Amino acid sequence: MRISDLGEFGLIELVQQWTRHAGRPAQGDPSDVFRTVVDNGDDAAAVTFVKDGVTEVYTTDTMVEGVHFTAETTPWRDLGWKAIASNISDVAAMGGTPALAFVTLGLPADTLVDNIKELYAGMNEICREFGARVIGGDMVRSPIGFVTVALTGIAAGEPMVRTAAKPGHQVGVTGPVGGSAGGLRVLLEEKAVAGSEAEQLAMTHRHPRPHVPEGLTLVGYGVNSAMDVSDGLADDLAKLCSASGVAAVVWADSVPADPALKSVFSEEWLDLALYGGEDYVLLFTAPPDVMSAVIRTLPEGAAIVGEIIDGPAGTVSVLDPDGSLRVRGGAGWDHFG
Amino acid sequence: MRISDLGEFGLIELVQQWTRHAGRPAQGDPSDVFRTVVDNGDDAAAVTFVKDGVTEVYTTDTMVEGVHFTAETTPWRDLGWKAIASNISDVAAMGGTPALAFVTLGLPADTLVDNIKELYAGMNEICREFGARVIGGDMVRSPIGFVTVALTGIAAGEPMVRTAAKPGHQVGVTGPVGGSAGGLRVLLEEKAVAGSEAEQLAMTHRHPRPHVPEGLTLVGYGVNSAMDVSDGLADDLAKLCSASGVAAVVWADSVPADPALKSVFSEEWLDLALYGGEDYVLLFTAPPDVMSAVIRTLPEGAAIVGEIIDGPAGTVSVLDPDGSLRVRGGAGWDHFG
Repeated sequence: MRISDLGEFGLIELVQQWTRHAGRPAQGDPSDVFRTVVDNGDDAAAVTFVKDGVTEVYTTDTMVEGVHFTAETTPWRDLGWKAIASNISDVAAMGGTPALAFVTLGLPADTLVDNIKELYAGMNEICREFGARVIGGDMVRSPIGFVTVALTGIAAGEPMVRTAAKPGHQVGVTGPVGGSAGGLRVLLEEKAVAGSEAEQLAMTHRHPRPHVPEGLTLVGYGVNSAMDVSDGLADDLAKLCSASGVAAVVWADSVPADPALKSVFSEEWLDLALYGGEDYVLLFTAPPDVMSAVIRTLPEGAAIVGEIIDGPAGTVSVLDPDGSLRVRGGAGWDHFG
Repeated sequence: MRISDLGEFGLIELVQQWTRHAGRPAQGDPSDVFRTVVDNGDDAAAVTFVKDGVTEVYTTDTMVEGVHFTAETTPWRDLGWKAIASNISDVAAMGGTPALAFVTLGLPADTLVDNIKELYAGMNEICREFGARVIGGDMVRSPIGFVTVALTGIAAGEPMVRTAAKPGHQVGVTGPVGGSAGGLRVLLEEKAVAGSEAEQLAMTHRHPRPHVPEGLTLVGYGVNSAMDVSDGLADDLAKLCSASGVAAVVWADSVPADPALKSVFSEEWLDLALYGGEDYVLLFTAPPDVMSAVIRTLPEGAAIVGEIIDGPAGTVSVLDPDGSLRVRGGAGWDHFG
């Protein structure tokens, strides 16, 4: 069987089986030092240092040329920003602050040195803004370009996970969605004009801002069920539901979107908001009383968009304003399809 | 300028300039939690948790299809072993024990699922043996295959570094070198016959053993100058000398090699031992009294192979048994050349 037949979800499930509890200490017991809080399958792995109770989180994310970015729509500086941003977002989704970044570059030999300089300028820019730092990595020759970032962070409290959504919870997002997908469309169609709403969307795509402060707010209010929106609200909610063994309904007319998105894509804005990726807002669930308290504290754009229900694990239904219901299975967009 | 013009060393130096002290805390100060002991440029980065003094080390290493491995000479199970081994070796070079591994796979969509299963079997095998564990990672679609592993470890004491070699130190290795390069040659020439010396070399190439216990021994004896041999004894010694601002002489007739290597490659064994990569023994320097004490404690095959001298930084000379001297500059083998 080829991985394209199995799909991303199937492959991840197998890998979890193959790795879970597979490693055992050869000498001494690492549990003297570590307690594993969250194992693979979530946005990040989380490990507590037993002695002083600091919980460190670890995540890694990769961008491949021609798959996750192209030279046409992603300048090198933006690529640097985004490669770090997607990792910071995973740390934010656990309720952590980013700390140490390790950058692996796969590069063709004819890559321009100035491009690498721009790449690091973009990484430094976002690191400075979010208090992270690149302290190591690896560079290798490769026929195609890729950037892998591994990032550590410190959790503010008990890490938020994907497995804690419960029927009766409401579903919230920490900000508007669809802006990044709209911005990509703008860039591909060369619609961006300086100062225009279209350019504003393009910037949302080029410089997504991970929701680190929002993640800390969620933890502060006792939210323990969250993930980041990287593949699109509907798909990521399906993943969260799948991990928690529940289903969800999304109220389409509650989904928050930037005015610019609604204006530039007046017909398709809702589809972009539901199915567009790379927004890096946080998706979370909580009991109604917690939800109503925390949603008031979050920045403008945060919204309650649906509810968790009993049902086939991973099933997400979208209730449209006209009362019709679209049902979507748990498979989501298949990265290998 | 293209990176092929600049070379690996030049590029690494630039990246260090571009990243050093570039990140600053946005809010709060990560130095509340961390003290950076070793920054990028060494085998691994090392960070001490201020509160309880545990020093965690981090490293990452990548293997790209067609560059670092081919399907012909590297079965998937071996690839899994080696991808983890090279990282464990970096942790060993700091005097640490491995802990948590994060695996990123770039895979073409037509990759066989059974191959991925084999890959993880190889990773699990070495993790079990060395007390590590795969607890997270990422899988992405990619036109070419690659494996990036990020690994954490715990340092037994003050991490050993590349910058501490001093004139008057002797140079030691913790085991024989050249076996892996000999094994690769055997595999390419299809010389391996079950039970033969050639097959023994092939196994050295396929299942290199990182020198974790040897690293702990070095730290126990107060050695603070070390790195692992991944690109070849001569090249890696040049890197260590370059980082320390010193030069070195290698006594060719003291370089340890497996009897199997000398037997199968009776003409070329010394070149394979000096210039062949992926042995994953540790290369270290120490004052003569420390060296003579520690070398007796290390397993058979460990040897004193030369000395550190004043001279142009990174220059390594090889003194042949006939008294002739080969001089080698600091550039080493150029990964992008």
